[in-house]
Amino acid sequence: MRYTIFGESHGPAIGVVLENVPSGLVLDMEAVAREMDRRAPGKNLLSTARREADAVKILSGLFEGRTCGTPLCGVIENTDTRSRDYQNDLPRPGHADYAAHIRYNGCNDYRGGGHFSGRLTAPLVFAGAVAKQILAQRGIYVGAHIRQIGPVEDERFDPVHTDPALFQTLAEKTFPTLSDLAGERMRKEIYDARERMDSVGGAIECAVVGMPAGLGSPDFGCNVEGILSQHLFAVPAVKAVEFGAGFGFAAMYGSQANDPLTMAGDRVETTTNHTGGINGGITNGMPIVFSVALRPTASISQPQQTIYLSRQENAELVVHGRHDPCVVHRAVPVIEAAAALAMTELL
Amino acid sequence: MRYTIFGESHGPAIGVVLENVPSGLVLDMEAVAREMDRRAPGKNLLSTARREADAVKILSGLFEGRTCGTPLCGVIENTDTRSRDYQNDLPRPGHADYAAHIRYNGCNDYRGGGHFSGRLTAPLVFAGAVAKQILAQRGIYVGAHIRQIGPVEDERFDPVHTDPALFQTLAEKTFPTLSDLAGERMRKEIYDARERMDSVGGAIECAVVGMPAGLGSPDFGCNVEGILSQHLFAVPAVKAVEFGAGFGFAAMYGSQANDPLTMAGDRVETTTNHTGGINGGITNGMPIVFSVALRPTASISQPQQTIYLSRQENAELVVHGRHDPCVVHRAVPVIEAAAALAMTELL
Amino acid sequence: MRYTIFGESHGPAIGVVLENVPSGLVLDMEAVAREMDRRAPGKNLLSTARREADAVKILSGLFEGRTCGTPLCGVIENTDTRSRDYQNDLPRPGHADYAAHIRYNGCNDYRGGGHFSGRLTAPLVFAGAVAKQILAQRGIYVGAHIRQIGPVEDERFDPVHTDPALFQTLAEKTFPTLSDLAGERMRKEIYDARERMDSVGGAIECAVVGMPAGLGSPDFGCNVEGILSQHLFAVPAVKAVEFGAGFGFAAMYGSQANDPLTMAGDRVETTTNHTGGINGGITNGMPIVFSVALRPTASISQPQQTIYLSRQENAELVVHGRHDPCVVHRAVPVIEAAAALAMTELL
Amino acid sequence: MRYTIFGESHGPAIGVVLENVPSGLVLDMEAVAREMDRRAPGKNLLSTARREADAVKILSGLFEGRTCGTPLCGVIENTDTRSRDYQNDLPRPGHADYAAHIRYNGCNDYRGGGHFSGRLTAPLVFAGAVAKQILAQRGIYVGAHIRQIGPVEDERFDPVHTDPALFQTLAEKTFPTLSDLAGERMRKEIYDARERMDSVGGAIECAVVGMPAGLGSPDFGCNVEGILSQHLFAVPAVKAVEFGAGFGFAAMYGSQANDPLTMAGDRVETTTNHTGGINGGITNGMPIVFSVALRPTASISQPQQTIYLSRQENAELVVHGRHDPCVVHRAVPVIEAAAALAMTELL
Repeated sequence: MRYTIFGESHGPAIGVVLENVPSGLVLDMEAVAREMDRRAPGKNLLSTARREADAVKILSGLFEGRTCGTPLCGVIENTDTRSRDYQNDLPRPGHADYAAHIRYNGCNDYRGGGHFSGRLTAPLVFAGAVAKQILAQRGIYVGAHIRQIGPVEDERFDPVHTDPALFQTLAEKTFPTLSDLAGERMRKEIYDARERMDSVGGAIECAVVGMPAGLGSPDFGCNVEGILSQHLFAVPAVKAVEFGAGFGFAAMYGSQANDPLTMAGDRVETTTNHTGGINGGITNGMPIVFSVALRPTASISQPQQTIYLSRQENAELVVHGRHDPCVVHRAVPVIEAAAALAMTELL
Repeated sequence: MRYTIFGESHGPAIGVVLENVPSGLVLDMEAVAREMDRRAPGKNLLSTARREADAVKILSGLFEGRTCGTPLCGVIENTDTRSRDYQNDLPRPGHADYAAHIRYNGCNDYRGGGHFSGRLTAPLVFAGAVAKQILAQRGIYVGAHIRQIGPVEDERFDPVHTDPALFQTLAEKTFPTLSDLAGERMRKEIYDARERMDSVGGAIECAVVGMPAGLGSPDFGCNVEGILSQHLFAVPAVKAVEFGAGFGFAAMYGSQANDPLTMAGDRVETTTNHTGGINGGITNGMPIVFSVALRPTASISQPQQTIYLSRQENAELVVHGRHDPCVVHRAVPVIEAAAALAMTELL
Repeated sequence: MRYTIFGESHGPAIGVVLENVPSGLVLDMEAVAREMDRRAPGKNLLSTARREADAVKILSGLFEGRTCGTPLCGVIENTDTRSRDYQNDLPRPGHADYAAHIRYNGCNDYRGGGHFSGRLTAPLVFAGAVAKQILAQRGIYVGAHIRQIGPVEDERFDPVHTDPALFQTLAEKTFPTLSDLAGERMRKEIYDARERMDSVGGAIECAVVGMPAGLGSPDFGCNVEGILSQHLFAVPAVKAVEFGAGFGFAAMYGSQANDPLTMAGDRVETTTNHTGGINGGITNGMPIVFSVALRPTASISQPQQTIYLSRQENAELVVHGRHDPCVVHRAVPVIEAAAALAMTELL
Repeated sequence: MRYTIFGESHGPAIGVVLENVPSGLVLDMEAVAREMDRRAPGKNLLSTARREADAVKILSGLFEGRTCGTPLCGVIENTDTRSRDYQNDLPRPGHADYAAHIRYNGCNDYRGGGHFSGRLTAPLVFAGAVAKQILAQRGIYVGAHIRQIGPVEDERFDPVHTDPALFQTLAEKTFPTLSDLAGERMRKEIYDARERMDSVGGAIECAVVGMPAGLGSPDFGCNVEGILSQHLFAVPAVKAVEFGAGFGFAAMYGSQANDPLTMAGDRVETTTNHTGGINGGITNGMPIVFSVALRPTASISQPQQTIYLSRQENAELVVHGRHDPCVVHRAVPVIEAAAALAMTELL
């Protein structure tokens, strides 16, 4: 499967085209709606006040409730837009405004971040919901939780015996953490940042259970880490990715890092899973475990230093409009979606 | 430019084909040789005892000393091979042995790690040396240093005023660190690990100076972070990548993380560079700064737990042969090569 | 530019996503409408009775009348559908019905040909209209005419001095031929075929003027003929393509076929253009000239031999519904669109 | 499988890298040698006097006689080169000389045609030989014959009951035609052209038997005709391709062109095969039948009109050196190779 996302935050609609969808999948639209709902904005003070129904209208690729195998296009209309909140001459620090201005010769739709808006993750979640249903048919499950918000850290997945039942529990939480206590403290971090007209970053841990061994290749463009990374860095705000022990490997010795092989009945397993289920760019049959870091939302209401694009002079900016003080909790289903799409590419 | 690496550690030769090389580049073969030499094994106790001349023979794409624009193939013969050191029934923990066995139905060339050998980074360094010469013509420079070995950390690049002259100094060091004191302590870490028949991991920081603003796109497959990651994860042992503040973003607030824009003469700059020169998947004209983590060498001489592939029973393994106790210092030019190739893809 | 077409003939909508559109193009929607109109059905007895407004609604990638540089999605709603005309158990000879049944495990949307319908060429013409406007900015023009319908042949383009003014004249004709007399005779062929409840095939000649020399490469995936072919064979009913003298080369001698080079002022030209503007897979600066053959419409109202898919028994079929006795005249702007998209890929 | 060919006619070596080769294929090197021999030059007066052993040295991807699944690189050394025969200032009419000069800014290796030489089809035949062995394991066979040389035409394959045994017979002929009488007359055409210091064009018909129904897609980049065309146009001198009735469709009626479906035992077949085994871009299980046209060799010894690249003035050129008066008979295994590679891409 290959996906192409289109749309701008304040344009007529946003959407996605999925190619190479297997034919014959009875698409569970309620499951799709549940995924969309996990990402949807406007539920509480932790998120932007913008409210969108985020109902996906399927234009193609579905016939009598089943996928046809031809490109599947899902579209979400933009309804609650307030374009007056935006102008273009003062690029917002931390945003793509300046880079986009250069990239697109000043022609980018800057309203609400345009094509760079976090809103564009809605079609990604839709695409991921389709991918998840394809994976579930093969006994493959994807789950994620908030690993960190500011200084607060959650517990971590058991990388060896990751239980897919846990994924279901997490998916039903509005603020998906393994430890509810950590979740409470994270929420306080976000409220506090909001109070200070600030925002806060975080990290998400994700696991995929059920992928067979032997997928991927060591070579450029074909290795599991590279494929997953391409999907993960297509999610706005993601700035780092680590597999298994990740940056922790830097301080480890081989005798600690190597995962011993063992027979678990007639199945080959490893007794630890520091490598995150991937050796030499190839799946080894253990859970695939990785984390991403997300930068704090760039839109904050404190005065910030910037420039006038037109006059090429220094300026001060105070960003108005409706913004998330933290996107990490809403990004959990987005990271799952990206991972699910990467898995369908690997299969 | 697109590259395809071929070869096995103990096969007749290893090499690379580079496509879409710009025509007319007068290839500086001495500069190529210097890069090859930075990666070459066998220089001291920090590395494997295997010795290879690593002379690149160019089979195509070069005419009268200049690139033709047609595919450039460089080949390195394998000479000092000791295949008796290897067998196949006991997959080495931490290695790709088991995953490769499944992936290739037991047909992979396991001798010396075959296609998974770190030796395959030699053609990558060659390809990177070509890429660096192309970049230098446009005033773009790539440099890297060891950021961490075990618990020892080096200083970090100044991400705002990264000086390319520093890259030259680093390239001439056999153990490239910014702080020589840190370098000494890292070397001791490696000797100690070797002494204990163990290995040790590390991290490398890399910077690219001179890339124009406006390259890349936010979309899947086109964003700078995704493209760089695909190149970096094609390097054996790399298990994590972070751009700018990377995982540090998780504990930051927007007011800290946002890079203020300012006029530096007639040039737009940022006064900090937490984003690592990339916003919304697009270059912003500041230095591109990122780090990778490398796992400790999997080949250690301590007894390890594994299985017999043939009998599907548990087994104990002691790895013999010549191995690096640490690959991080030799990987510095490899990471630079991967970064240089990614930059030519972006341009 | 890369395009992805989605939709089924009797689904909610059909459309296309265009990626890598240059930013800043002021899109001339009237010119788009004119191109759509050239392809539109229902104008006279030469075409299907199905009538569609074919108004393209642009969902993304356009801001204040200019392209943003982000993916451009255009959608056309399906309105005049009569799905009762279709059933699925009797694959129509000459159609994709049987192949699609196998390919998609019986899940394809068979109504009106589904994703295989000629109606899917409407979004292709839209994409081509965008491409043509990009090309026109660089002085590149694409034109085509009906070369043959049944036994009747039109005159041919002057391949050396192809005049782009002629393209405009042809675009304004409802039945685009160079010779109006040949056009009259072709129309009679189509009426006659319709009368006999039959259909008729044909060929289209297309030329591109203004492409610079030196585009393309000899290698797989990069040569001009290969790139154009991929675009042309994505048009339903196209079964052959020839460049320049094409199949005529088989009966030629080198002394006839070689195009002599000459100075035309300070410009290098060839005095003949048998090669169709392409040597070694690279443009040579002369007009790019090629032809395609289109099979007769498969839907005819005569009794035909087929099978029951369900019972795997022989059957007889009489196709009902509204069908074109010939698609060649309507395919002229479609071939131009495919050629224009190929040119933007080459540039 | 994906292939990358490298090399220049008078450089150190030519070769090919094959990616995504299935692991475990016991490579029959004698079968490879037979294929190489079918294409090899220097056998008689019908071909160039250049003699090359064309022995393929495999550098990677093969271990203990079996493919590893990692990239397979095969190299052929250039030995019998006479570079003094070539100069660069007078581009040869019909050759890629001028287009390549512009494309590569005058840096192309012009000796013996460089990367554009027909000699580069040797690694293609090697790659095709590997592909054929993969296909044969699945009961898929590829065969071809000379369809036309100048005015002389051969008989055609029975497109419904194409017998793979015939392919073997053809492969053993030094001048592969179905009718030996036609072959005699074609040979005379070639001798006569040679006598006149001229060259002659031709056409090749190729068939693939045993491909399952349901491969390919209607969409851009995925349809069988487009994929095959990309492979075929990567063969030097190919200027046209037609599937099934091809250009003949232009003069046909639907009632003639439609292939009736019928049950042949429990197998669905068509009673005719005008469509060449492909409907809607998807295989239908019948033989895939197509033809290509090849232009006459551009190198002829008659005086021809050209220009001085340096002086930008008109000039006269008499080409010296060793050249084929016709490449069609030597191209037969090349077309088979391209078809075999396309089939492995489809599977």
